[in-house]
Order: sequence, then structure tokens, then C-alpha cells
Amino acid sequence: MTDDTRLIAADWGTTTLRAYRIAADGQVAERSTLPLGILKVPGGNFESVYAEMFGPWQTGDAAVPVIAAGMIGSRQGWLEVPYLTPPSGVAEFASVLGHVRTRDGRTMAIVPGVAMVGEDGVPDVIRGEETQVVGAHIRDRGASGLVVVPGTHSKWILAEGGRVTWFATFMTGEAFAVLSEHSILGRLMRGDQPDTGAFRRGVDHGRSDDPRSAGLLHKLFSVRTLGLFDTVPGEALRSYLSGLLIGAEISEASRAIAARLGTMPNTLTVIGGAALARAYGSALGHAGFAVKDDGEDAMVSGLIAIAEAAGMMPTS
Amino acid sequence: MTDDTRLIAADWGTTTLRAYRIAADGQVAERSTLPLGILKVPGGNFESVYAEMFGPWQTGDAAVPVIAAGMIGSRQGWLEVPYLTPPSGVAEFASVLGHVRTRDGRTMAIVPGVAMVGEDGVPDVIRGEETQVVGAHIRDRGASGLVVVPGTHSKWILAEGGRVTWFATFMTGEAFAVLSEHSILGRLMRGDQPDTGAFRRGVDHGRSDDPRSAGLLHKLFSVRTLGLFDTVPGEALRSYLSGLLIGAEISEASRAIAARLGTMPNTLTVIGGAALARAYGSALGHAGFAVKDDGEDAMVSGLIAIAEAAGMMPTS
Repeated sequence: MTDDTRLIAADWGTTTLRAYRIAADGQVAERSTLPLGILKVPGGNFESVYAEMFGPWQTGDAAVPVIAAGMIGSRQGWLEVPYLTPPSGVAEFASVLGHVRTRDGRTMAIVPGVAMVGEDGVPDVIRGEETQVVGAHIRDRGASGLVVVPGTHSKWILAEGGRVTWFATFMTGEAFAVLSEHSILGRLMRGDQPDTGAFRRGVDHGRSDDPRSAGLLHKLFSVRTLGLFDTVPGEALRSYLSGLLIGAEISEASRAIAARLGTMPNTLTVIGGAALARAYGSALGHAGFAVKDDGEDAMVSGLIAIAEAAGMMPTS
Repeated sequence: MTDDTRLIAADWGTTTLRAYRIAADGQVAERSTLPLGILKVPGGNFESVYAEMFGPWQTGDAAVPVIAAGMIGSRQGWLEVPYLTPPSGVAEFASVLGHVRTRDGRTMAIVPGVAMVGEDGVPDVIRGEETQVVGAHIRDRGASGLVVVPGTHSKWILAEGGRVTWFATFMTGEAFAVLSEHSILGRLMRGDQPDTGAFRRGVDHGRSDDPRSAGLLHKLFSVRTLGLFDTVPGEALRSYLSGLLIGAEISEASRAIAARLGTMPNTLTVIGGAALARAYGSALGHAGFAVKDDGEDAMVSGLIAIAEAAGMMPTS
């Protein structure tokens, strides 16, 4: 069954490991997901996860090449692969892959992340998203060059021809999690059914640049007062907070990108898992942007492209 | 010993109950603190806390009046006392005090909070801080009228002649707590010794209005990257985050107040507990403001003034 395997591609992040078996035709033949992200690997024994996950796909005579992207290449991962700097794209990533070797001689290539120092002197980093950008641009060369990857730490990335030229990180997802779980804002929340009206109200308030609305630290308190005064029901407060934070992120990112480019593009591509990408698409659409949704497969497309550029997939 | 007691004044908040015995000369004769804020009262039995805390000071023949301010007057407190609206000061507070009566006939007056709907249509509330503002203005009539009360939810309050005319809440303290305890930002932090240099660097970055720095959701990630790249040592990251959030609050509040007044005052009064008030004083001073520190006794001064205005302390 696996004799036609040309490549094993892995999205190895903080909490989840997603693996893809790529067949001779370049398509995904099988996929598998385990909750074995780098912080979940028992005893840091990456080799045993490697054997469990990729072993069943390595039964043929020839060694099947394996390539991974994501936090597996970070300091807490299997091997720290140094960051590249912008502009970096498929050729640069392919030329400086990190390599680990298991005790029984199997190997895995790891895509480097990208680090830059912002115009304000503060560093920023991506690891995994650079591969998603490569994939998104291969699949849609007409994209505007602005890519949003929502997540615990949301990334806005400018790219040209598949090369990352600038990016910025926003702690939106993590702020939502800790504020709704651990702050007073969660006390009035009931249930987690999405409420589109409350979400959009949050987006509007989060995006508002009216100086009388102060800024995010003040706006957050509206989750409490709108709940206290029954203006937003408890069932809708979670959606309101989510919209408020995503709206603030859109405003912040637009400001930074307009400062860099002189204008803010009104078309962008959202990459990511279904529910979160839909929420961002909804917020960005409500804010007037034309949004392309690139789904979850940008990562595997990027991994295949980098493996090809690195000569890991000789045409047989 | 307590025959000379003219008033018992209480600052009854969410986590702490502070009580003061006021002698015939109008001075604080004794003070007592218990960790029995409204969310810590066993079974919501406020009467037993009342007896424990105030009973020993009520041994004379005449009933000693008791007045309290803070969250004890909220929906989760002993009695929900309706909010007043701005402008409100000592006369207004004294005329609409709430009153609870214990089963053995003793009473306690509760100062109302203040609610307003901001120019952006979003409500905001204070409860307890209105009494601190009254106290601060009685003690220093020359104050500029801008009062900052740092805390879990920091309050910036404009007042004239002891009357509250405008205020705004900032979730700075709670954001610091949940981000340092529950987010990835806490992972690189080591120890909690204050670091003045890192704190000031945080204040500067938090206040920065440079569009290339985006905004708070992006700036927060600098706590991670400056730590990762060893630019700010782990021992100083807690101070850096604290400065970053307080700096952002100063920037947000200044923006809102300038929009309201047409200009931002450069003198203000900070009220509150020692360590937090010092941190705010340091940040505000670094940001160029002239800061008066009104210490912890603004609350008791305000309670005495309101009790006097309400006729609770007839001159004997």
C-alpha cells in the first residue's frame, strides 16, 4: 500500500502533530493526527513518536524522505534550527533545512522559521507559518501578498512570490483564552454558542479608532459592563469578546501595514483551521476586506514545494 | 476605650475589608483589616462579619454609626445600592445612602457607586473610588481634578470640587495577572524583583504611538521575543510586562481625556496602596507627569465627609 509513497510531510506544532503521506502523483494519499505536539511528547522522546507516526508509511525498500515544519525546529523541539531573515522563500528554506537522524538511521528535514527585527527595534518570529505562506502562494499566485494565519498567536505576513518580506504577531487567541477562562470577564458568560450580532458589535468596538473609546485595556471592560447592564446577554458575551479582540487585531495590523506600505491592501488570504478561519473571515468581511480562505492544506503544499526544491523528491 | 467612638468607617471591597474607628477628634483611632471581602464572606453571612469586625467598637451606650463604601453595595454584596450619575459628589452621595439593618437592630450606611454611559455609548462604573475622590479633594483642594486609582481595574476619574464628572476603567491589573500567570509570557519569567530599567523600557514601548508598533496585542508579544533573544533577562520580564501594560493605560487614558477636555492635564493624583501606587507614580513620572501620591487614607477621609454630610455624626 505504501510503495508509492514519495514523501512524508509533517506539521509538528506545540500541541498537535499532523502527518501526510504524499503519493507518487504528488497528492495527499493519507493523513493522520496525534495530540503529540512538542510540549506533549512523553519525556521529550521524539524518536518514538517518529517511529509511531511515520513507521507504518516507511515499509518499502527505499528510504522515504520526511520533512517537517513548525515548533519541532524550536529550542523546545527536537532540533533548534536557526531562523532565516526576510526576504526568505522556498529556495532559501530548502537550502538550509535542519536534519535529525534517528538511531536506526532514518532522517527528517526541518524547515527553519523566520525572525526579523521590526522597524521599532523589537524582534518577531514565525515558525511554521513561513511554510504555509509558501503553500498558499504556490496554489494562488494571484494572491495580494497579505496572509493572515489566525491562532493562539495570530500572524500577519507580507510576501512576494512566495518570499516572506515582513510579518507581525498578535496575541489575540491567547488573550481570549486567558481572559475568558481566568478573568472576571468570564463570570457573566454563559454557554459558547456563536452569536453573530454580538460578534460584529465586538468587531466594531474593537476596531474603533474613536479617541473617546481610549484603547483595548478600556474596551475590554465593556465586556463586563455590557453584561452587567444586560445590554449583551450572558450567552453572547463570549462572541462579543472574541469579536472585540479580533477587531482590535485588524485595527492594529492595518495600522502597521499601512505605515509600511503606504496603503492597506483590501484583499487578503486567511489560512487555518475551519472554525477560527471562519471567524476571522467573518470579522474581516464585516470590516470591508475581500477575503480568500486557503483552508488547512497550505501547510502540506508548502512542505511538498520545499522538499522538491531541496531535491528530496527525485522524479523516479 | 471606645466611648469616644464617633464613627466606624469601612472600605469593604471584593477581597478585603478594612475598618477604621474614628474618635471624637475626627481622627483614625484604630484600624483593622480582614480578608473578608464580599467574595470571601462564608455563606454570604455579612451579619456575622459585621458583628466580628464592628462589635468590639460598639460597646458604648449610644449606637455608633457605621458607613461603608465599595463592592459591599454591588449586586454580589450585602445590598445593591443603585448607581448615581455624574456629576456626583459628597452632597449627592450623602442624600442617597443605602441602609442595611441587622437582626439585632444595628445599621450600616452604604455609599452608592457612579455609572455613566461614555460618549461612545458604552457604560462604565465605579464603586468605592467615588469615596476616595471625595477624600482626596477634601484633603487637597488644589488638585488638578484628575485622579488615578490603580488596581485590578484601574480607574481614571475627572472631578471638580469633589464631584465626579467623568471616569474610565482600564483592566490593566487583571490583564497583568492573567497574562503572567496563565499565558506563555510567564514561561520565561524568573523571580519577581522589580527592575527599574526593564519597567521603564516597558512603559516607553507601551506608550509608543508609532504605527509600526501596531498596538497592544502585538506589543505583548515583545515580552516573549525580548526574552527569547535574551534582550531582556528572565528576571526582568515581569517588570517589563508591568511597565508595558501601565504605559499602554497611560496612553489610552491620555487620549480619551484629551478628547474630552481638549487637552491632557500634566498634573494628577494617584491614590492607592503603597507598591502599586509607587509603580504608577514611577511610570507617570517617567512619562512626564507631575504626580501627587495621596496614599491609602483618601477612602477614610471620604467616608467621614459623607457621614458628616448625611448627619450621621452630630456634634455632641
